[in-house]
Amino acid sequence: MGRFSIIKKENRAKLGSFETVHGTIKTPVFMNVGTVGAIKGAVSTQDLEEISTQVVLANTYHLHVRTGDELIKRMGGIRRFMSWDGPVLTDSGGFQVFSLKSLRNIREEGVHFRSHIDGHRIFMGPEESIRIQSNLASTIAMAFDECPSSKAGRPYVIESVKRTERWLLRCIEELKRLNSLPDTVNREQLLFGINQGAVFDDIRIENAKFLSDLDLDGCAIGGLAVGETHEEMYHTLDVTIPHLPEDKPVYLMGGGTPDNIVEAVYRGVDFFDCVYPSRNARHGQLYTHQGKLNLKNAAYAEDERPIEEGCGCPACRRYSRSYIRHLLKAGEMLGLRLCVTHNLYFYNHLMEEIRQALENGEYEGFRNDFLLNYLSSGGDK
Amino acid sequence: MGRFSIIKKENRAKLGSFETVHGTIKTPVFMNVGTVGAIKGAVSTQDLEEISTQVVLANTYHLHVRTGDELIKRMGGIRRFMSWDGPVLTDSGGFQVFSLKSLRNIREEGVHFRSHIDGHRIFMGPEESIRIQSNLASTIAMAFDECPSSKAGRPYVIESVKRTERWLLRCIEELKRLNSLPDTVNREQLLFGINQGAVFDDIRIENAKFLSDLDLDGCAIGGLAVGETHEEMYHTLDVTIPHLPEDKPVYLMGGGTPDNIVEAVYRGVDFFDCVYPSRNARHGQLYTHQGKLNLKNAAYAEDERPIEEGCGCPACRRYSRSYIRHLLKAGEMLGLRLCVTHNLYFYNHLMEEIRQALENGEYEGFRNDFLLNYLSSGGDK
Repeated sequence: MGRFSIIKKENRAKLGSFETVHGTIKTPVFMNVGTVGAIKGAVSTQDLEEISTQVVLANTYHLHVRTGDELIKRMGGIRRFMSWDGPVLTDSGGFQVFSLKSLRNIREEGVHFRSHIDGHRIFMGPEESIRIQSNLASTIAMAFDECPSSKAGRPYVIESVKRTERWLLRCIEELKRLNSLPDTVNREQLLFGINQGAVFDDIRIENAKFLSDLDLDGCAIGGLAVGETHEEMYHTLDVTIPHLPEDKPVYLMGGGTPDNIVEAVYRGVDFFDCVYPSRNARHGQLYTHQGKLNLKNAAYAEDERPIEEGCGCPACRRYSRSYIRHLLKAGEMLGLRLCVTHNLYFYNHLMEEIRQALENGEYEGFRNDFLLNYLSSGGDK
Repeated sequence: MGRFSIIKKENRAKLGSFETVHGTIKTPVFMNVGTVGAIKGAVSTQDLEEISTQVVLANTYHLHVRTGDELIKRMGGIRRFMSWDGPVLTDSGGFQVFSLKSLRNIREEGVHFRSHIDGHRIFMGPEESIRIQSNLASTIAMAFDECPSSKAGRPYVIESVKRTERWLLRCIEELKRLNSLPDTVNREQLLFGINQGAVFDDIRIENAKFLSDLDLDGCAIGGLAVGETHEEMYHTLDVTIPHLPEDKPVYLMGGGTPDNIVEAVYRGVDFFDCVYPSRNARHGQLYTHQGKLNLKNAAYAEDERPIEEGCGCPACRRYSRSYIRHLLKAGEMLGLRLCVTHNLYFYNHLMEEIRQALENGEYEGFRNDFLLNYLSSGGDK
């Protein structure tokens, strides 16, 4: 069982540690997204060790439709398959399945849909999702949920959240069954539930209370970082988190920008994941403590400085803005790899700075300073 | 000046060392191709150090038309630009210019052609090529030559080789001038001449004698590895090399397969470069001492072994055939990077094995054993 220890608190912000069978996770933590068992941009697990990655996030749907979770089980699970010693969290596949709008059909038992690769029919319900995640043998499995559209009306959201709650009970049962089987690769697989409720505070709160009554290893907040304003996101965190279990980690799914993370930690979030670091790297958008810089700008053509001065990442320790810009312009893969490496390091290192500030009891000041530096220079605009 | 020392000889095969201002090169050596100042497949210069790369080869034409040699000069030259401490050899750009068949026009002064990127007019002659290479500040510059088509008739080849000889004299003069200028980045830049003559032994021999009379730092053999049979290549090496200077290194441009290299060393070649390791990696073709294996074959889907058992490359030390195959199938860049890394390591390590065999005075036996193992399992077919 995952044991979450809170080392220090500053208002709602927590410095913690989460013990798992695959190692202890220092929180707050940013999980690095490795959709199909690899980080985009040719970043290897050896590189991840160099940039202080703690947890890799892998994608249940993508690994199921390509290569297959049964093959990966025979190879010893996703961690052994990709040669990653640390913890892995798998999402439930729900988010991907529900994105295939025209291809899916939701029923009480689960979702019928078609593969985006070859169109073949697939059924995924709570049991199937958990079975795939058990085959992948991740450290933490996510419950199979529906993420209702932020435009969905109240009646639909109520119906959807109730169904997701029934699905959660089935996930818990199925994981208990699988964790007791002798040939399960990771028999200590953990489970996080997911809070939903779109923009309706009372539905979010009722659902948070429902989650609190269950014996989950952690709770995620879903349905955010999908296009709402930052204020709406912070509002939902403010109203929801006080109703989630105090002694379990809180995971904000898919969020967000560096300032989102600093603000969400302030509101009590412990786990994060986000595709921005790699997606932005693809467009030459690099994170610094003074906001993002766009390396494709002509201004950097002869700039001998590293992406960010003082940065300890493998890209900044060795290469200039000028050279990396040249690589991006020439379409050389190494350019993308160096940019992804820098951005992931920036996020991982930001979490270290956050933990250090919490350790020192100075999170309030850190938050103000960080936001001032980061946002005054343009932030994520 | 590059000082070539022959440490040991076995018939025509040589174990040597070539001193340059950027470090000593142990020969025979395989140079790793980094066309635009980066190895294809997101391989970094840090990776190159891990796979025993001695020399990087960069491309004059590509760096001239993209980013530009003048910018690279202002950044301190190609070695500083790409953060590579060891020696760099630049080709002359001639091969690329002459490949742009419909876009070029050859005159005594040089070649008028159009950029393959934006179609703008460029003129490149011996002085321009050497000036670009001086701006790039490589360790070794190559003379600007024409590589006549293997289908060209004798009269054209005679005319072409004579012109290339006149161009070589102009290259020597221009490099002497540039090496004496105070603001030249590498004032000890070396120059290799290039032997041509298509399939005509007497033209090759006459040209080799011409090269021998000049004070060059090394001689390359051009116009091979362009589609002729292995027997034709070996024949040309057999007839030409005895007429090249004995105390200067010999460079076989663009060749070749592992068995080509073993055979060419036997015939007196010291320097090699080839795009096969990275090009084959792109197609999942991996080198082993038992010939190539195609990782895309279904047979490897659940193969937990490394690409080659006992291989010390970063890909083999950590990842399985099964995982790398999964990455290639899923189109993940990391797959290509691991394959390129393995193939370059295989080539670099092959050169180490060759040097060790020469050191032990056992090259003849090494050659027989290697070819037996490599070719009996299919070799490069």
